[in-house]
Amino acid sequence: MSRKVAILGASGYTGAELVRIIATHPTMDIVGLSGERKAGMAMAEVFPHLAPLGLPRLTKIEDMRFDEVELVFCALPHATSQAVISTLPRTLRIIDLSADFRLRDPASYATWYGKAHAAPELQAEAVYGLTEFYRNDIEAARLVAGTGCNAAAGIYGIRPLLEAKVIDPDRIVIDLKAGVSGAGRTLRENLLHAELSEGTHPYAVGGTHRHLGEFDQEFAKVAGRPVQVQFTPHLTPMNRGVLASIYVDGDPVAVHAALSQRYDLEFFIHVLPFGAVPSTRHVRGSNYVHIGVVGDRMPGRAVVMVVLDNLTKGSSGQAVQNANLMLGAEETAGLTLPPVFP
Amino acid sequence: MSRKVAILGASGYTGAELVRIIATHPTMDIVGLSGERKAGMAMAEVFPHLAPLGLPRLTKIEDMRFDEVELVFCALPHATSQAVISTLPRTLRIIDLSADFRLRDPASYATWYGKAHAAPELQAEAVYGLTEFYRNDIEAARLVAGTGCNAAAGIYGIRPLLEAKVIDPDRIVIDLKAGVSGAGRTLRENLLHAELSEGTHPYAVGGTHRHLGEFDQEFAKVAGRPVQVQFTPHLTPMNRGVLASIYVDGDPVAVHAALSQRYDLEFFIHVLPFGAVPSTRHVRGSNYVHIGVVGDRMPGRAVVMVVLDNLTKGSSGQAVQNANLMLGAEETAGLTLPPVFP
Amino acid sequence: MSRKVAILGASGYTGAELVRIIATHPTMDIVGLSGERKAGMAMAEVFPHLAPLGLPRLTKIEDMRFDEVELVFCALPHATSQAVISTLPRTLRIIDLSADFRLRDPASYATWYGKAHAAPELQAEAVYGLTEFYRNDIEAARLVAGTGCNAAAGIYGIRPLLEAKVIDPDRIVIDLKAGVSGAGRTLRENLLHAELSEGTHPYAVGGTHRHLGEFDQEFAKVAGRPVQVQFTPHLTPMNRGVLASIYVDGDPVAVHAALSQRYDLEFFIHVLPFGAVPSTRHVRGSNYVHIGVVGDRMPGRAVVMVVLDNLTKGSSGQAVQNANLMLGAEETAGLTLPPVFP
Amino acid sequence: MSRKVAILGASGYTGAELVRIIATHPTMDIVGLSGERKAGMAMAEVFPHLAPLGLPRLTKIEDMRFDEVELVFCALPHATSQAVISTLPRTLRIIDLSADFRLRDPASYATWYGKAHAAPELQAEAVYGLTEFYRNDIEAARLVAGTGCNAAAGIYGIRPLLEAKVIDPDRIVIDLKAGVSGAGRTLRENLLHAELSEGTHPYAVGGTHRHLGEFDQEFAKVAGRPVQVQFTPHLTPMNRGVLASIYVDGDPVAVHAALSQRYDLEFFIHVLPFGAVPSTRHVRGSNYVHIGVVGDRMPGRAVVMVVLDNLTKGSSGQAVQNANLMLGAEETAGLTLPPVFP
Repeated sequence: MSRKVAILGASGYTGAELVRIIATHPTMDIVGLSGERKAGMAMAEVFPHLAPLGLPRLTKIEDMRFDEVELVFCALPHATSQAVISTLPRTLRIIDLSADFRLRDPASYATWYGKAHAAPELQAEAVYGLTEFYRNDIEAARLVAGTGCNAAAGIYGIRPLLEAKVIDPDRIVIDLKAGVSGAGRTLRENLLHAELSEGTHPYAVGGTHRHLGEFDQEFAKVAGRPVQVQFTPHLTPMNRGVLASIYVDGDPVAVHAALSQRYDLEFFIHVLPFGAVPSTRHVRGSNYVHIGVVGDRMPGRAVVMVVLDNLTKGSSGQAVQNANLMLGAEETAGLTLPPVFP
Repeated sequence: MSRKVAILGASGYTGAELVRIIATHPTMDIVGLSGERKAGMAMAEVFPHLAPLGLPRLTKIEDMRFDEVELVFCALPHATSQAVISTLPRTLRIIDLSADFRLRDPASYATWYGKAHAAPELQAEAVYGLTEFYRNDIEAARLVAGTGCNAAAGIYGIRPLLEAKVIDPDRIVIDLKAGVSGAGRTLRENLLHAELSEGTHPYAVGGTHRHLGEFDQEFAKVAGRPVQVQFTPHLTPMNRGVLASIYVDGDPVAVHAALSQRYDLEFFIHVLPFGAVPSTRHVRGSNYVHIGVVGDRMPGRAVVMVVLDNLTKGSSGQAVQNANLMLGAEETAGLTLPPVFP
Repeated sequence: MSRKVAILGASGYTGAELVRIIATHPTMDIVGLSGERKAGMAMAEVFPHLAPLGLPRLTKIEDMRFDEVELVFCALPHATSQAVISTLPRTLRIIDLSADFRLRDPASYATWYGKAHAAPELQAEAVYGLTEFYRNDIEAARLVAGTGCNAAAGIYGIRPLLEAKVIDPDRIVIDLKAGVSGAGRTLRENLLHAELSEGTHPYAVGGTHRHLGEFDQEFAKVAGRPVQVQFTPHLTPMNRGVLASIYVDGDPVAVHAALSQRYDLEFFIHVLPFGAVPSTRHVRGSNYVHIGVVGDRMPGRAVVMVVLDNLTKGSSGQAVQNANLMLGAEETAGLTLPPVFP
Repeated sequence: MSRKVAILGASGYTGAELVRIIATHPTMDIVGLSGERKAGMAMAEVFPHLAPLGLPRLTKIEDMRFDEVELVFCALPHATSQAVISTLPRTLRIIDLSADFRLRDPASYATWYGKAHAAPELQAEAVYGLTEFYRNDIEAARLVAGTGCNAAAGIYGIRPLLEAKVIDPDRIVIDLKAGVSGAGRTLRENLLHAELSEGTHPYAVGGTHRHLGEFDQEFAKVAGRPVQVQFTPHLTPMNRGVLASIYVDGDPVAVHAALSQRYDLEFFIHVLPFGAVPSTRHVRGSNYVHIGVVGDRMPGRAVVMVVLDNLTKGSSGQAVQNANLMLGAEETAGLTLPPVFP
């Protein structure tokens, strides 16, 4: 049976990626697409690669009919999301891909996003969308908050280690390499091909990146006390992909065992053999996560390396995985597309 | 019902692309994979991005059991193919992705490939695998020869124009931009990232590229007389994609009409509105072809622009499309994966 | 003796490239830099790679003192140039890198740029800046118009052939591959790394690209009658470089001879041996031009391939070469930097 | 006065980069080039971008005449270097760009390179070529060992901090992003454009990278006791550039002060203002090093970020800087070429 969904904010990269994934989904149909500035346009004009799919035309949200829609993917900009979602029918189930509902604590939200939340009651209701850790809550949720793509990579690598108490929570360094689609379809000089290709640089250094709010929230929860990590993202000349190189103090074998055990039954998460290293190329375009663990020559030090595709498992693939849970479909439905290499 | 297939030469790019496509095919199963130098290895070692698929281990061809196999994809190097295919059971249906069976005429083969064909009887039997032009023959064929990726791009743009007699057959220039995966997993200095990225250059200039043999064969057939085109390929720093910019003498509107009409019912081939231009990015990772036509300021001159993904519609996707025909499946089965952008 | 120069519009790519070249120039000093929107900023903020050079701070043009300045490089946007140059002291010698003074004929300017020229008297005075063809005029000129980068590539390949009457002027096709810095530091979606890398597409097709105005002007002059060429540029995922593949009707050996002879004494222009092909990689970052000629299998058809770096020989390097002439310096001064590869 | 030099192993990237730099050097002339497998070829065949320079033809080392040569750059493969250098006339001064003479201790060499050194007496004589730390020794040396490019980046960031005792020597993590030319002109599948572009991965993880031998040697020397760092390099899709992100325990302001003070008088090393971050793009093609320091939100933790061009300051530029010292030239001669951006 076909389940009808709509995508708000379909003219950005996560919107396009939702369309790409749902196009081969066995039981999900897109019946509405919104795009404020591009309302009235065909998706083929906004994203010519989607031309063959016979998609509905972009509309304004106010003109969208939600009668038949069961679930809405909300791929709107940060801050816009909270305003829009407040106005949607309560009967709709919603997966928000923005940052608006990731943090439970209003004070934390205000700290990281610089102003008070406009819909704190929704914030309280939302479930953090990292499927492998909140599966039951997501199934039952009305509103699911898609995670940050960098946050997902870090949490996949660290949370099981805190749970298993095999690392020192005060000595965690996350050095992250991010592909440029993570910055969205944003017009900025440093995202131009001429400026971004052929080089790399750190950004949001010194504990200022907003995904730290997610790390703080999720790690404190499992550690039972505040945990602060060092986190430095770097912009890398690749379109898709996140590689988190996580430096921890702990026995490397115990670290590998904790991750292997935690993800043993997870379809999308592959822990590589001890000593093997992952590559973003091997998950590009797919919903898979690869995790490698290596021991340092210094005893008691390990590196955990996590790769995922920021547009797929880091946002739109994760969203479809959660939608599957919410709609009672097979969790992996539509998500078994293999990676694209080369 | 599942149809069992094997892939010979699975350690190259076209082999990997066959695996990627067949992984989500509703009715096709891979039961055998060969790789001479890598026999005994798991596909996960050769192509880690395919690790999650639970594929058979690579074997030598001589150790492969063909009892259950209905169809073999042969992704071996040129020249190796003719030797191997001669030894396969006659009960097998075969799609060859090498250049070995593309040319019908032994003399033409000898001219373009520099030596006599080793299996001329198979050469005579083979069907040229450009689906949209040989659909019926392919359905019935035992041996189908996958086309050159550049040849496919050129023929899609030109053949309908010769059929419709709307262009001058003596004034055809094909300037082609090719992505690097077309050169295969070959270790050559000029294919290294350090040497290939950030620049472009022509190669096989002056009428020496072997795909000219295919142009000559296919165009003479529809024109009823020899047709020679000028053809210059250029290596471009992109992994996938072919863009053929074809300069013709003919009325642009008639050119556009001939192409639109010819491909009107073809699922994978989209003729853009008159004056619109295609981009390789919009077909990457998919089996689609986009064709644009533009009129020059000089009356009677037109440019036809054809894009396809060399690994998909240009080789492995085309092969699966043909396999669908040969096995009586839906022609588009497994091939509706949307393009991957960005 | 040091010659003092200023650069107007120093915050774009051609401005930065002028700075890079002049930094090692033996006799030229930069004493002023303008940037309207970035006035007051240090160049190190606008272009951190230029930080070590000890450059003057950016000012508004109106605040710039021209007392000591002998020559001004004007790297302002099209249309802005003609307004600004009208107001500069008549004692200044000027090299304009915009499109504003490339066309001699006011009607032609209006056709290609869509409005009347605002300073037709300056337009009449300007000299077309293709050094190898206008050396004497440039030496004496007050105002030199830098050529289009694509126009330069095409003219280098074609003009000597028209002069030598070895090709048919009515059968010239220029298929051009352009690097992205040619589009300038412009914020457009299709110039983002996520959208531009990993693909190629044609643009300004059908005889609409403005550099055709330059082709028309220059070719008519030497042919003594109107000459129209077909010209299709393609955007290619490389930052620097232009490759013009020029299809001509003419004897390939005569074509090669005409080019070899014409450029025999030119320091920056290298005609490769007959049959050899150039690559944009081999001139990147330098003022060199490489030209290759290949004969087709069809007698009487040839391909001429021209490569240059659009930011160097195609604009800023050319400008310094012309400035050298105007200031009585060695023509090659500051311009012998070898290409950067890889 | 011109000083005559030769380059052994001129067919690799560091050889080509030496040629590029020396081409505009005011007082250095290349009188010999060797290349074993390519002996007899013109440099224009091996590196067409160097065609305009009028270079000597490649010879075998045994055929090279050293009569006039004052200094030899040895850009041969590791292990080959020690064999060749043993046979060169003792009157020659030598800068070796291989790894063969970087480690003083024969036991350390055997540990990191897997076999005994073949010329231990030369090993004892060699001076470590990090100019800013060994200037006087280099001036007087007969044999200078060029440093590892990654080692240089790490040492520039860390050594002054150990000297100033502002960090904990037991808590140093170096996460390094390396461009692909660092791997040399080596034919390996994972260096092909199709496999390397559009992704990133770690390599030589867990304390196995050979540049750790250099870190151990240099850091123990200034700390007066063994210092072990964690070091993980990552291959990044850029041709040139190294970015070392170094995580240290120490007061960020003191860290910044120690670096600023140490490099205050160094021409090529720029310590950015506190909190600013460097980019590999801003030093590409140049001999500059940029260093940034940022304090973490956790007090007492800092990140030091160092960028350099592996082919220039990381090898060939460093070599020319040392050659200048050895030949009594201005230390910066030939090395003030600005970075190339975009």
